[in-house]
Amino acid sequence: MSRFDQANREAVQRMMDAHPVLVDMGRAREVIPGMKDNLFLHAGPPITWDRMSGPLKGAIIGGLLYEKKARSIEEAEEIAASGEIEFAPCHHYNAVGPMAGVITPSMMVYIVEDKTHGGFTYSNVNEGYGKVLRMGAYDDEVLTRLAWLNEVYAPVVREAIRLAGGIDLKTLIAQALHMGDDCHNRNRGNNSLFARMLAPYIVETELGQKREYDFPRIDLTATCPFFKERKPTLAAEVLAFMHSNDIGTLNFLMAACKAITLAGHGIENCTLVTTMARNGTDFGIRVSGTGDKWFTAPANYPKGLYFSGYSEKDANRDIGDSAITETAGVGGFAMAAAPAIVNFIGGKASDAIEATIEMYEITVAENSNFTIPSLNFRGTPTGIDVRKVVEKGILPKINTGIAHKEPGVGQVGAGIVNPPMEIFVEALRELARRA
Amino acid sequence: MSRFDQANREAVQRMMDAHPVLVDMGRAREVIPGMKDNLFLHAGPPITWDRMSGPLKGAIIGGLLYEKKARSIEEAEEIAASGEIEFAPCHHYNAVGPMAGVITPSMMVYIVEDKTHGGFTYSNVNEGYGKVLRMGAYDDEVLTRLAWLNEVYAPVVREAIRLAGGIDLKTLIAQALHMGDDCHNRNRGNNSLFARMLAPYIVETELGQKREYDFPRIDLTATCPFFKERKPTLAAEVLAFMHSNDIGTLNFLMAACKAITLAGHGIENCTLVTTMARNGTDFGIRVSGTGDKWFTAPANYPKGLYFSGYSEKDANRDIGDSAITETAGVGGFAMAAAPAIVNFIGGKASDAIEATIEMYEITVAENSNFTIPSLNFRGTPTGIDVRKVVEKGILPKINTGIAHKEPGVGQVGAGIVNPPMEIFVEALRELARRA
Repeated sequence: MSRFDQANREAVQRMMDAHPVLVDMGRAREVIPGMKDNLFLHAGPPITWDRMSGPLKGAIIGGLLYEKKARSIEEAEEIAASGEIEFAPCHHYNAVGPMAGVITPSMMVYIVEDKTHGGFTYSNVNEGYGKVLRMGAYDDEVLTRLAWLNEVYAPVVREAIRLAGGIDLKTLIAQALHMGDDCHNRNRGNNSLFARMLAPYIVETELGQKREYDFPRIDLTATCPFFKERKPTLAAEVLAFMHSNDIGTLNFLMAACKAITLAGHGIENCTLVTTMARNGTDFGIRVSGTGDKWFTAPANYPKGLYFSGYSEKDANRDIGDSAITETAGVGGFAMAAAPAIVNFIGGKASDAIEATIEMYEITVAENSNFTIPSLNFRGTPTGIDVRKVVEKGILPKINTGIAHKEPGVGQVGAGIVNPPMEIFVEALRELARRA
Repeated sequence: MSRFDQANREAVQRMMDAHPVLVDMGRAREVIPGMKDNLFLHAGPPITWDRMSGPLKGAIIGGLLYEKKARSIEEAEEIAASGEIEFAPCHHYNAVGPMAGVITPSMMVYIVEDKTHGGFTYSNVNEGYGKVLRMGAYDDEVLTRLAWLNEVYAPVVREAIRLAGGIDLKTLIAQALHMGDDCHNRNRGNNSLFARMLAPYIVETELGQKREYDFPRIDLTATCPFFKERKPTLAAEVLAFMHSNDIGTLNFLMAACKAITLAGHGIENCTLVTTMARNGTDFGIRVSGTGDKWFTAPANYPKGLYFSGYSEKDANRDIGDSAITETAGVGGFAMAAAPAIVNFIGGKASDAIEATIEMYEITVAENSNFTIPSLNFRGTPTGIDVRKVVEKGILPKINTGIAHKEPGVGQVGAGIVNPPMEIFVEALRELARRA
């Protein structure tokens, strides 16, 4: 066995040994080491304001308005361009955020602990579908919802997570793959299971008993029509939001995947990809054996299904840290477990199955924790080997949401995308140079 | 098109048009028309006490103890043999019960309404796995749990169902098939979704706020360890039980399937099976075109996986009304949607897929509501044609629990079973005679 193969075997074993547990929530400024008042985190590799795409700019503008650092869009743009705010990838802080992935200092984040190797990873709170900050929208409705999520919803969920003594995310992902989820774009199974699991604790939180609070309510009457007739408790509102948002768990599942990939990172001669992330302009990867160096190139445009009224010409380039799911062996790599996903991202069910089959070509292991029932419980393809990607000319398949290219609009669809091949070629060169 | 084909087409269309909604709960004596104080309903075709199998006898004994009609097992056996209590199939009252299917007068039942054709169907409350009444067990633990379920749990759930304005079961089944459920032996998806959907209402029930009640508590600390530290609200307990019981929804899904099959029943010249049910001794079917006549023969023994410490020699013959799921086009007929089920019933994932494929051979329609993602969203095989069963020699495949053959023990496993062929032959003869 070559030293590369040996390093890869060690890395992928460490990934599979990782045991991510959702242990707590807290304010980014207080819980993410190195986070500070004038630092905004974002998805993907490093980028400056002038090169940011519309949806990332939109989310930064929204973040500045949300943090009350700006009073208008114009002022926000000025501040963003001034250098007053530092921008850095979430990944530099062991955090991950879907789509724009903007995490600002006062936002509440999920805290995931790797119980095997120690260490913490983080993600923000999911806002639901449509016109949301992570898709680049920033109007009053978006900001009201953000405030409700961070100041009303998250504190109840935090109290419930603490009462529960943490939620095992490794088991949740494993079960979800048997419930038709890919754990990236389709999460109805794990969302339902998570809500069901946390519900008795949510009911017992002190905060959950309250019916009054100081922030504007968000409209949940479409989910729970009886909220029209009575002012619900916070517990009921939190549970109603959970029911309304089938992608609500994505963020902490991403933090779990970050914990998994982190366990395989930084191993000499290891040719496995440990980060795939996009900022809406560039696609970046990091490889275990090349440490914290980013390999970047322009991100591609996803192919998929568009919401009513939108089409390909509205789409931004690929964006978000959510490709961490594929990097950990789920998401697009586990699509065979989630054939119903094609209702959302397009294509035929057989495409979903073939996507997983193809990913075995570029990975080094079949996951010992995450299995696919319809493939007779074969483990998901895990550990992307840059050598295999380059030699076989097969690119990772990533499930993704699609954001509008202009700031202020939001989500326009969902689909599938590939990274650019050149970054794998560059990474391979760097690995060769080091070896 | 022959008059048979025409009748079948009409019947299966009525089945697919049926729209079952869980609208309420109530005490059997008060809500099931014809139910009375000395009537016990049971699964399967009619049977007398002397011919009843162990698990059905056990459930009858348990029912007599539960209703305080007997003070000991011996007294219960005497009463059961005396003719003092009338026994009748659940199906004669548009009710269904899994396994022994015993419904006694004071038990709470789910009420399902067919919003398309009108009419109501019923089922009892699911007790979970293991040592339970429906599997023939009747000790104090079983009776305590029954009391808790009927007097504590069900009233909260009833209040929540009313607050919610009913729960659409047609949609729930359709979604569940995309979440890895077959809706007979695997229900984790729909259980989770149902709990998530009902949770905000459970929280808002008046009964749910209480922490005290007059019945012994059941031990839910394995599900919610924090119940050791504090006395939870009823809402939290109800949600914890829902989380603990992955088969909790089966009973009202069966009532939904009863509503579906009832819609196709009683059509002249129709050769479709509208009931398959077993009492632990006999397997009985009813056919649309032969009205309420039962065709019966000795039930087979299921093949499957046994719980630790049990084997085939402990198994009772096939028992339960739950084959109504297969009759409605889900359960064993939709196993391709639920390949993870083989972890519970045995076999390989490919067997689950092949089972569904084979069932297209003996059915007349592909369901327009219930689809299987991995088969490119093909509708489930629906409407079992006795002509096809007899001509092709292919029997329906039924997923099932396995009860111990002795009264008082409980569940010992789960597996797959076929009905006896002769009842289809008899039904076909009767159809021919009438035509």
